[in-house]
Amino acid sequence: MTVIKKAMMGLAAAAAMACALPAVAQFQKPEDAVRYRQSAFNVMGNHFARIGAMVNGRVPFDANAAQVNTEIVQTMSRLPYAGFIAGTETIGNTAALPEVWTQSDKFKAAAQKMQDEVAKLNVAAKTGNADQLKTAFGTAAASCKACHDDFRKKP
Amino acid sequence: MTVIKKAMMGLAAAAAMACALPAVAQFQKPEDAVRYRQSAFNVMGNHFARIGAMVNGRVPFDANAAQVNTEIVQTMSRLPYAGFIAGTETIGNTAALPEVWTQSDKFKAAAQKMQDEVAKLNVAAKTGNADQLKTAFGTAAASCKACHDDFRKKP
Repeated sequence: MTVIKKAMMGLAAAAAMACALPAVAQFQKPEDAVRYRQSAFNVMGNHFARIGAMVNGRVPFDANAAQVNTEIVQTMSRLPYAGFIAGTETIGNTAALPEVWTQSDKFKAAAQKMQDEVAKLNVAAKTGNADQLKTAFGTAAASCKACHDDFRKKP
Repeated sequence: MTVIKKAMMGLAAAAAMACALPAVAQFQKPEDAVRYRQSAFNVMGNHFARIGAMVNGRVPFDANAAQVNTEIVQTMSRLPYAGFIAGTETIGNTAALPEVWTQSDKFKAAAQKMQDEVAKLNVAAKTGNADQLKTAFGTAAASCKACHDDFRKKP
């Protein structure tokens, strides 16, 4: 059953669901948390790559498209970390290294760094200046890579 | 190789990548399009369910949290349809029914209906009124269900 279906069923039968579901269940099971964080990263990576294609000259620079994509990237950058909860360290096909949990302060700092750089990327996109976008993209990409190097299994 | 890594490699070696990558490659391969649309729906469903939990009384109403979540849902509502491209009808573990492509006008109308109802949900959340949120949530949930009924394999 999907989360949406759960939500809809809940609407129709709130009383029954109140007994059947755990309280404050952001994720029904550990697999859901893994899938959520992977999904958020996937969407973020896709839109980040669309900006990269512009920055690298593979597609023409389009100031409006850049803004739309950086806005989505910034929204997504805030989401995945809610999924790195205890009990999900070895669930499913997670690419997370144990260091996400054993070095959680360092992981949080790396996440914050990425979020900060992505926020700057979004500001750069709003200028409509291709050079500023390119510079900010490079710094943001480096913050992605730094976290992957330390906290993600190598493909 | 991930899309982010591709983007970063591209930054470092734009000339080489211009030859190696197809032009305007939003998705490198059909699997990527399927994963993207599933990811966008997953994130949307998760945040929609968080609103549902409030609407159904499983968690206390929190006007600010409702707004944050409806904003994310609205952003996500626009994304997944870019992934329903030709050549992805039977790829991977897609739950899409053939009707997505054989009845594409009807599918697009159902997608638009969901996007419209989600936009109204976002407006309702901004009022800070729990009853307005609940009403709009119910209508939005029905638009999700209508599309699932016609265009998604049953679990």
